[in-house]
Amino acid sequence: MAMVNAFDPAARNGLSPEDRALVQRREKLLGPAYRLFYQKPVHIVRGEGVWLYDPAGEAYLDVYNNVASVGHCHPKVVEALSRQAATLNTHTRYLHETILDYAERLLARVPEALSHVMFTCTGSEANDLALRITRAFTGRTGLIVTELAYHGLTCAVSELSPSLGDYVKRSDHVRLIPAPDAYRRKGDIGQQMAADVRAAIADMRSHGIEPAALLVDTIFSSDGVFAEPAGFLREAVEAIRSEGGLFIADEVQPGFGRIGPDFWGFARHGLVPDMVTVGKPMGNGHPMAGVFMKPHLVEEFGRKARYFNTFGGNPVSCAVGLAVLDIIEGENLPQQAKEVGDYMRAGLSDLAKRFPAIGDVRGAGLFTGLELVAGDDARTPAAELTTRIVNGLRDRRVLISATGPGANILKIRPPLVFGREHADIFLDRMESVLKDVS
Amino acid sequence: MAMVNAFDPAARNGLSPEDRALVQRREKLLGPAYRLFYQKPVHIVRGEGVWLYDPAGEAYLDVYNNVASVGHCHPKVVEALSRQAATLNTHTRYLHETILDYAERLLARVPEALSHVMFTCTGSEANDLALRITRAFTGRTGLIVTELAYHGLTCAVSELSPSLGDYVKRSDHVRLIPAPDAYRRKGDIGQQMAADVRAAIADMRSHGIEPAALLVDTIFSSDGVFAEPAGFLREAVEAIRSEGGLFIADEVQPGFGRIGPDFWGFARHGLVPDMVTVGKPMGNGHPMAGVFMKPHLVEEFGRKARYFNTFGGNPVSCAVGLAVLDIIEGENLPQQAKEVGDYMRAGLSDLAKRFPAIGDVRGAGLFTGLELVAGDDARTPAAELTTRIVNGLRDRRVLISATGPGANILKIRPPLVFGREHADIFLDRMESVLKDVS
Repeated sequence: MAMVNAFDPAARNGLSPEDRALVQRREKLLGPAYRLFYQKPVHIVRGEGVWLYDPAGEAYLDVYNNVASVGHCHPKVVEALSRQAATLNTHTRYLHETILDYAERLLARVPEALSHVMFTCTGSEANDLALRITRAFTGRTGLIVTELAYHGLTCAVSELSPSLGDYVKRSDHVRLIPAPDAYRRKGDIGQQMAADVRAAIADMRSHGIEPAALLVDTIFSSDGVFAEPAGFLREAVEAIRSEGGLFIADEVQPGFGRIGPDFWGFARHGLVPDMVTVGKPMGNGHPMAGVFMKPHLVEEFGRKARYFNTFGGNPVSCAVGLAVLDIIEGENLPQQAKEVGDYMRAGLSDLAKRFPAIGDVRGAGLFTGLELVAGDDARTPAAELTTRIVNGLRDRRVLISATGPGANILKIRPPLVFGREHADIFLDRMESVLKDVS
Repeated sequence: MAMVNAFDPAARNGLSPEDRALVQRREKLLGPAYRLFYQKPVHIVRGEGVWLYDPAGEAYLDVYNNVASVGHCHPKVVEALSRQAATLNTHTRYLHETILDYAERLLARVPEALSHVMFTCTGSEANDLALRITRAFTGRTGLIVTELAYHGLTCAVSELSPSLGDYVKRSDHVRLIPAPDAYRRKGDIGQQMAADVRAAIADMRSHGIEPAALLVDTIFSSDGVFAEPAGFLREAVEAIRSEGGLFIADEVQPGFGRIGPDFWGFARHGLVPDMVTVGKPMGNGHPMAGVFMKPHLVEEFGRKARYFNTFGGNPVSCAVGLAVLDIIEGENLPQQAKEVGDYMRAGLSDLAKRFPAIGDVRGAGLFTGLELVAGDDARTPAAELTTRIVNGLRDRRVLISATGPGANILKIRPPLVFGREHADIFLDRMESVLKDVS
């Protein structure tokens, strides 16, 4: 995932003295891993709904934050958090109702075959746990992910996150397959992906490695957002299963209604995974995540591996998770995500007719990829233009970022409470930027 | 770490119908990994200070929870959490003061050489990150931990957690050394540990593996709590450094004042580690953790590895962390931990004179190990007796657990707000149990 909007130290002089001081303190205290968005970073002090505010009270439209999915600082979430934190916050080795109420609500939202849930604190921990279970259950080591996947940052799953770049070493047990990029690849994308999986398995086996699992983000977020045609994942999943491997759906980004009423990316594809990992929007910013699984996968692991996550599944996290589910369901947000997403993509497609740099507009629900290209037949990625658009939107107080192998794909994934009125503001400012950079 | 007080399914009939229903729901929803404490599990619904309450309002004295370190549901922590969650909760790619204010406060508490801090959500993630940095910086793979260490549950660090048992496989790059058990080993424990480290390095090298780091929990919690004599760790640290390896102090359990005014276990030993990992009590139950490091270790990793933790260092976590530090410092809890810990150990040593099953009482601050043995010269671990004591204390409404290779060491580590009056209650009930089981 190219960071097209990383902070440019040369732009520091454009900042206020206060913000410049913050940048200097960050470098001194946090070190070089802490990157800032935008050539001119944004200082945020308050959030509400789809809006973030700087110290001067200027409002920024958030079209990027898939964590604060029911809206920044939703009062019902804050209320649940505060109430439970004042009552009890402890681990799962005592009996407590809330974890069970929450587990029941979650499991009612996934296929019946996935009948256990285990709680962690981050999506990385969830994918790492899924990997531990996979290795223990299958006794195999071969993993297949897409070329620019992101599945987290632990030692083990950073190997499965090629979007982190070549500095992060991958063992010989990981195979990369091309993203299901219907914009650039010809022919049936489902058949191609299945063929890619079969080729990866054959290559593994030629090195004496047996395939353990296919792990995919079901909307291929960091690869560039690939959602259509719904169902294309089915053949690839058959390909891994027919060779004895598992299918793990990483729903950390697409899950919890973002892609529409199907609720999960795997459901949009008509699939029942062996395991499902969830995270980011689950607690609207509260650190919580989890893994759903078919129970036979953990029959032995659960008894013997002594997995105990100190904070995972604590009463506060579960109360927060229940509040988030209440809002998603009570406010019918998955349906709204579909409607507003379709509306926004229609508006962007209209812009594409007037601005040839927009090569493709795609996605599902409130997860949209917009690809910027040179006007040539090769659809050459327009990375530099994308950087200008991202920073131009920032100057117009719209928060966004980009991804993809060519660093040319806008990732548009606002909180689910984003409405048509917000889509109109975004489309208006997008048009203004496109005019400016054209 | 033997789970001497795991739930015994045969005891289910002793539970109320309501609690029996909770146990059944847990098994169905969460699966076999979710263990309960005690032969007759406890149903907890409320916490305050050092007390936890069941639905009938019965109060249980918590002498075990090292997470709720400033006391269960401390109102100032809840207030900070609620206030910041209502204001802003987002990631670290915008400028924000709170992470910097918190980082400054934290770094002021560690040696100057450790001048960067990176934030994660769990101690497992912190140790996993320390491991990634170690591998990247040293280019080496050999790790040394103690025989019954616990450093977390990711794929990578579960390999470094032999207390999880033999089901969790270890690669050839991990070497185990004996715990610095001054109760059972003769002679100078510091010299022995250094010799053990040197032997582990020699053994690695005979297999073509270079030593990357020595990683220790500086109070050896799951090994059985070994604190004395302060300073014994120094020779072992010299041994790893003289061969080019790093010293990583795992302060997830001993850190944040638990061991007394030295504040950190490594400081008690007069050491400056290359990295320090922290977690559990940092947020008094809020999921947060971190790594302190010498800056040269992450100069390259920080720029190239693209480490970004979605929830780590968010404004809510940092506000909570600041409140916890305010309380620890404002209420002088490290000094209180030392005084109450010494008082409690003196009381336990008095009991030892009357109850020969108490073989050893040891520790620092509010982290005490109490070893139960048969009355023979071999100091044979009394595992069955320990189980009876743990469950007998539970019946007297004292929450505790046990550890050690022989499953015979009570781990006594209450919240830091534990006072002499609470120590007296504990000693009284402890005496009652000892009389009962003798």
